[in-house]
Amino acid sequence: MRTEGPITGEQIAERLNVTRAALRPDLAILVMAGIIDARPKVGYYYTGKNTFNMLVEEISRIKVRDVQSVPVVVPTNTSAYDVIVTMFLEDVGTVYVVEQGGILAGVVSRKDLLKIAMGSGDLHKVPVKVIMTPMTKIIVTTADESVLEAAKKIIDNEVDSLPVVRPLAADRTYEVVGRLTKTNITRLFVELGEGKRR
Amino acid sequence: MRTEGPITGEQIAERLNVTRAALRPDLAILVMAGIIDARPKVGYYYTGKNTFNMLVEEISRIKVRDVQSVPVVVPTNTSAYDVIVTMFLEDVGTVYVVEQGGILAGVVSRKDLLKIAMGSGDLHKVPVKVIMTPMTKIIVTTADESVLEAAKKIIDNEVDSLPVVRPLAADRTYEVVGRLTKTNITRLFVELGEGKRR
Repeated sequence: MRTEGPITGEQIAERLNVTRAALRPDLAILVMAGIIDARPKVGYYYTGKNTFNMLVEEISRIKVRDVQSVPVVVPTNTSAYDVIVTMFLEDVGTVYVVEQGGILAGVVSRKDLLKIAMGSGDLHKVPVKVIMTPMTKIIVTTADESVLEAAKKIIDNEVDSLPVVRPLAADRTYEVVGRLTKTNITRLFVELGEGKRR
Repeated sequence: MRTEGPITGEQIAERLNVTRAALRPDLAILVMAGIIDARPKVGYYYTGKNTFNMLVEEISRIKVRDVQSVPVVVPTNTSAYDVIVTMFLEDVGTVYVVEQGGILAGVVSRKDLLKIAMGSGDLHKVPVKVIMTPMTKIIVTTADESVLEAAKKIIDNEVDSLPVVRPLAADRTYEVVGRLTKTNITRLFVELGEGKRR
């Protein structure tokens, strides 16, 4: 089947020199297991699946909405000092900067704040707008993207988290609706490994 | 088999009112798939496995040594300022504080540094010893622990990473040999999902 499929049950029986009846239960089990499939009037063919590929499928089905956290946001006129306070109060590593109506304007991480804190300036006087990563450099995800795709973005772009957004217009205007972090993905990994999620 | 196993091939054939010969290929496939197993002179029994449990086993086999990163360490007499510099140079979120001989003395995170940076003190004059999390509160892992167990520790204790240690004595004296982060686990998740790791 792997090399010559689709192939009919009759052809297989002939090739293996057995009766079709003898073949039937074996084929039924292989179909049930998802390893082969049958198309009416065409024949049996190899699906290319094994338990490992099923693992891949299982993982690919999980969406960002299934694991995302609530976003923590501050208005654009917040000071760096107040952003740090917000981070500690909410116990998050990333804060989203938003304009009127929850429109995403930028992202601030602990790393951004630590960099500015090393300087000699007064953190109360530094506006978050100056230190945030602006929209042009922000990688986003959406609630219905697969966690796998989003996790790839996190790894490839070397960021700690992605804002989960809802596009409002074609020109990168987004409402921020969630937050996908490496903590979410680590927790998902634990749940998968413990058999708690399927 | 699920309720009455182990059960012999003969008994199954009798129960299903078929010949043992008719049964043989079906049993062979179920054994191959790992869903049942056979013990000589005892009979067939249900293993309780399905593709999902196999996923769990697959994940449980991966060890910390397979995904860990190189640890970034500073001596105990380093200033908070220099720890921040090290963090930026090495691009890590956690630095390990070590005594002579690489003995782990404490852990410093971006969060610890941000907290101290908010104060009015001179970061050059604050020794890392004052701000680090001391050994009594540190959760550790070892290279041969499963990533799953280590990931559980990360989630349950709400930490960003675990030092990978080699115990040197019974009284919590450890040499630090690695670093297991949520980035390592996110990357592992991507590799599992892409079918790149088995």
